Amino acid sequence: MNEKSILDGIIIPVITPLDEKGNVDLESAKKLTDYLIEGGVHTLFILGTTGEGPLLPLDEQVKFARTVVEHTDGRVPVIAGISETSTARILNVVEKLTPTGLDAFVSTLPYYDKTNVEEQIRFFEILADKSEIPISIYDNPYKAGQVLDDKVIVELKDHDNVIGLKDSSSNIRKFRERVEEFGSDSNFAFVLGHSDVIDLSIYFGAAGVVPSDAHLYPELCVSIYDNAAAGNWDKAGELQRELNAKRIELYSKFPKNSRANNKVCKKVLVEKNIIDSDVVVDPYF
Amino acid sequence: MNEKSILDGIIIPVITPLDEKGNVDLESAKKLTDYLIEGGVHTLFILGTTGEGPLLPLDEQVKFARTVVEHTDGRVPVIAGISETSTARILNVVEKLTPTGLDAFVSTLPYYDKTNVEEQIRFFEILADKSEIPISIYDNPYKAGQVLDDKVIVELKDHDNVIGLKDSSSNIRKFRERVEEFGSDSNFAFVLGHSDVIDLSIYFGAAGVVPSDAHLYPELCVSIYDNAAAGNWDKAGELQRELNAKRIELYSKFPKNSRANNKVCKKVLVEKNIIDSDVVVDPYF
Amino acid sequence: MNEKSILDGIIIPVITPLDEKGNVDLESAKKLTDYLIEGGVHTLFILGTTGEGPLLPLDEQVKFARTVVEHTDGRVPVIAGISETSTARILNVVEKLTPTGLDAFVSTLPYYDKTNVEEQIRFFEILADKSEIPISIYDNPYKAGQVLDDKVIVELKDHDNVIGLKDSSSNIRKFRERVEEFGSDSNFAFVLGHSDVIDLSIYFGAAGVVPSDAHLYPELCVSIYDNAAAGNWDKAGELQRELNAKRIELYSKFPKNSRANNKVCKKVLVEKNIIDSDVVVDPYF
Amino acid sequence: MNEKSILDGIIIPVITPLDEKGNVDLESAKKLTDYLIEGGVHTLFILGTTGEGPLLPLDEQVKFARTVVEHTDGRVPVIAGISETSTARILNVVEKLTPTGLDAFVSTLPYYDKTNVEEQIRFFEILADKSEIPISIYDNPYKAGQVLDDKVIVELKDHDNVIGLKDSSSNIRKFRERVEEFGSDSNFAFVLGHSDVIDLSIYFGAAGVVPSDAHLYPELCVSIYDNAAAGNWDKAGELQRELNAKRIELYSKFPKNSRANNKVCKKVLVEKNIIDSDVVVDPYF
Repeated sequence: MNEKSILDGIIIPVITPLDEKGNVDLESAKKLTDYLIEGGVHTLFILGTTGEGPLLPLDEQVKFARTVVEHTDGRVPVIAGISETSTARILNVVEKLTPTGLDAFVSTLPYYDKTNVEEQIRFFEILADKSEIPISIYDNPYKAGQVLDDKVIVELKDHDNVIGLKDSSSNIRKFRERVEEFGSDSNFAFVLGHSDVIDLSIYFGAAGVVPSDAHLYPELCVSIYDNAAAGNWDKAGELQRELNAKRIELYSKFPKNSRANNKVCKKVLVEKNIIDSDVVVDPYF
Repeated sequence: MNEKSILDGIIIPVITPLDEKGNVDLESAKKLTDYLIEGGVHTLFILGTTGEGPLLPLDEQVKFARTVVEHTDGRVPVIAGISETSTARILNVVEKLTPTGLDAFVSTLPYYDKTNVEEQIRFFEILADKSEIPISIYDNPYKAGQVLDDKVIVELKDHDNVIGLKDSSSNIRKFRERVEEFGSDSNFAFVLGHSDVIDLSIYFGAAGVVPSDAHLYPELCVSIYDNAAAGNWDKAGELQRELNAKRIELYSKFPKNSRANNKVCKKVLVEKNIIDSDVVVDPYF
Repeated sequence: MNEKSILDGIIIPVITPLDEKGNVDLESAKKLTDYLIEGGVHTLFILGTTGEGPLLPLDEQVKFARTVVEHTDGRVPVIAGISETSTARILNVVEKLTPTGLDAFVSTLPYYDKTNVEEQIRFFEILADKSEIPISIYDNPYKAGQVLDDKVIVELKDHDNVIGLKDSSSNIRKFRERVEEFGSDSNFAFVLGHSDVIDLSIYFGAAGVVPSDAHLYPELCVSIYDNAAAGNWDKAGELQRELNAKRIELYSKFPKNSRANNKVCKKVLVEKNIIDSDVVVDPYF
Repeated sequence: MNEKSILDGIIIPVITPLDEKGNVDLESAKKLTDYLIEGGVHTLFILGTTGEGPLLPLDEQVKFARTVVEHTDGRVPVIAGISETSTARILNVVEKLTPTGLDAFVSTLPYYDKTNVEEQIRFFEILADKSEIPISIYDNPYKAGQVLDDKVIVELKDHDNVIGLKDSSSNIRKFRERVEEFGSDSNFAFVLGHSDVIDLSIYFGAAGVVPSDAHLYPELCVSIYDNAAAGNWDKAGELQRELNAKRIELYSKFPKNSRANNKVCKKVLVEKNIIDSDVVVDPYF
């Protein structure tokens, strides 16, 4: 598998099905895996923010990763979110998750404490050096508590074991600037983490996009991507507007909060009989 | 030991001595424990933010807690900071740390994701119900990413296993309001987490204060507390101004950031030959 | 003139040339007016944020408006920014500026104090009712200190004297949502206030864009708009990338602050001999 | 009158009584002036934030200032808030208000645009140089959109025409640090702008305090100040807690927003027959 292609296309941030006790539901995980791959998504991104990865005990993360990787059986790449507070703690997570057969890790900045740019660079350099599988940088200021410094991209983009940047900062102008400045000549891929701008990510020259809405409308998300990738911008825009209208209507029925993506996806997947329960990680409702 | 008294007086947020590899240095830990107790502090608060607790692997936390508790040998209470992203993850931490013999835990809100007030209450209720040792609530918006809702205090303050609130929100007016509204009639203790307002905490009617400066000037911190507790406000204010002038001069020599407390304390303790190294948790400088 | 067309195309946020004493330089104003209209821009937007309008004494604002309107002589529409702290104060500004012959006003929310949604609606309703010329709403949270509530758009978009929304909130996803939700069926025009996303504004279905870079590269800005308006998205994107590369290079030579747009434009216009001095309003450097 | 004494004691931030049309009600202004002076307050601070000064047309400000100064007739000092967006605009305000006979001005940083430290210093230097009456600096980040840099205090505190700093930043630790660092040796007075910490301001060594609650409980506010000034800290604290309990109960009956101080004061003053109407500046409710 070409490593760059791991971040091409529709990269779904897979939710983690839980049973009523809050443990990972592995049978639902298998059905969900099939449903998503059959829906045409290009990569499975598990244990990210939508996947409640940082909220789950590490052994539950490992069980889920192993099940999804085995059940996927090479049909698409499987990558996983990792987030921790320090170098030592994240290397422990890497050590436990790597044997499950994942294709890559996606890591935020360390959270809890703020980091300066040298610390940010050091963190990703050590992570990339020590991990046996590739690393993608993840800019998520809502979770990490701070924006990733662009100098991290400059220093890491040519590292052999770093494949790209997932940008969930919601700063579209900044994302465009990053793609225009750093995206042209390297094996470093950019992906945008928002369902409502799938077309823009591709228009800007990025590789892919990470839309949680691909749980709800997988074919429509793939179709937006396909039209955009083919340069059919008017059609891509029309389909994106269709998706946006659907999502606004759907989300208006649920309370607005930082876990809405996760919970709406779970509720709809229960209705579709893909997973058994819409339970989310405690203490979150 | 009266449980309320755990949060009375000078509660030092103990730094965690590390060796050059970043592992906990247990010999330095013992010397530090003696130094602080001999300096007159009333309670040792380990593994908090100043103690880099949430940045250390859990087995390192356990080793450090066991060593400090054993070496203290009942001379003063020993309490520990715990911080995690979800209920399941924090109960795992509680399970591992409780056998070390700690007197209480101090927990922030779950971080990574934002919580609403019902989720905040649920989190602390489960934690207080399940922990075998008392819980203190810790309001630290700089780390948890959000302010604790006052309704959490209302709901938890009469819980048998909840002993107080550590407030590091830097909102002095709010702290005073909390003490005036909730502090009069219960076994719920308030403590303020800032070295520069030891006198104010007591003036407001709170039980104690958590000054990292007690690493540097233990006797002076204790003396401010003693004068304040005796109602000698003019003297307490004079000594507090003396401490503040010393700390401003000292801190002006170091870069200003969110880990300055930790790093300045380690450097001075190395100079005093209390600990061997000023190493902090990687990737932080 | 069709009122909607006032907000179509490239709406340049005209800088205000000042002399060495900080007074409006009317001769430079005339030369600048000619330069911009000859560059092909579709509307002159004076006294906005880029134009330092809210920083100038009102009589200076009036002199500048009168000169630009007279010198434009109907070649393109001329609209003006107005911003104040209360209803009474903004109606005073409207009264003084209206006789200069402007085509429309563009107003932020009142600043200094925060407003709730009812107060926001009331403010714009009174302004629209009392002004003899059309009003455009201006969402600029960096200046007004808060984001415009969408309910203001809902309530005002069908008002006879309200022609559109200028969005400088830098929230591109929100802008798209607003255009998709409110932009289809009315005489209410949307414009985006950023030079680096001229193509996006049109791609989203908006009427125009307000790029300060049109001072520097008027023909290029117009060409991006023309290609976008014609649906030539690949070409529009290519030209936008060309503009963005130029602006990043140019702006990298100047200190980054909230008045950089204004100052860079003035410096370049002095070099081009369009205006006499790059003085900005005191106390700003 | 000793200029420093202008900022000693209870400096009431006087509300501006308005009639039903929103114009200044000069008869109510006179009654209010008498009520406050008879209540024992030491200085009248008109046209500040509580006084809605920056929201009123300048001619209304002038009328109100003239009436209050004349009616006060030297019984206490009268000072006025001024706030504007630029040097030229604030000097215009100074020119119009000075002839009313005010004792000093209190000015925030320019708002609308952000200023760097050199611009902040320049702004206050020009203001202090040009004004015929003394200037106090006013740190109000909620209104000016940014915190005052401490270097402004360093540069201005020995200026002949600068008498002090009013701090409404709500950062009590910072205020204490400022008093301890800059307050000892000069004619530069510090005052804290919050009703709930009258005692603290004096405990820290500041000159006075600016409590809007002095509209509601003038004698109680004065008594807190008197006890604090006499070093009766236990009594000062007890009275402050009494005031705080009263204010929490009173304010709980009104919606919480940035103008609550102003509106609650007006409502209570109408009930007490001191002013005729509780109207506030339009469009605020």
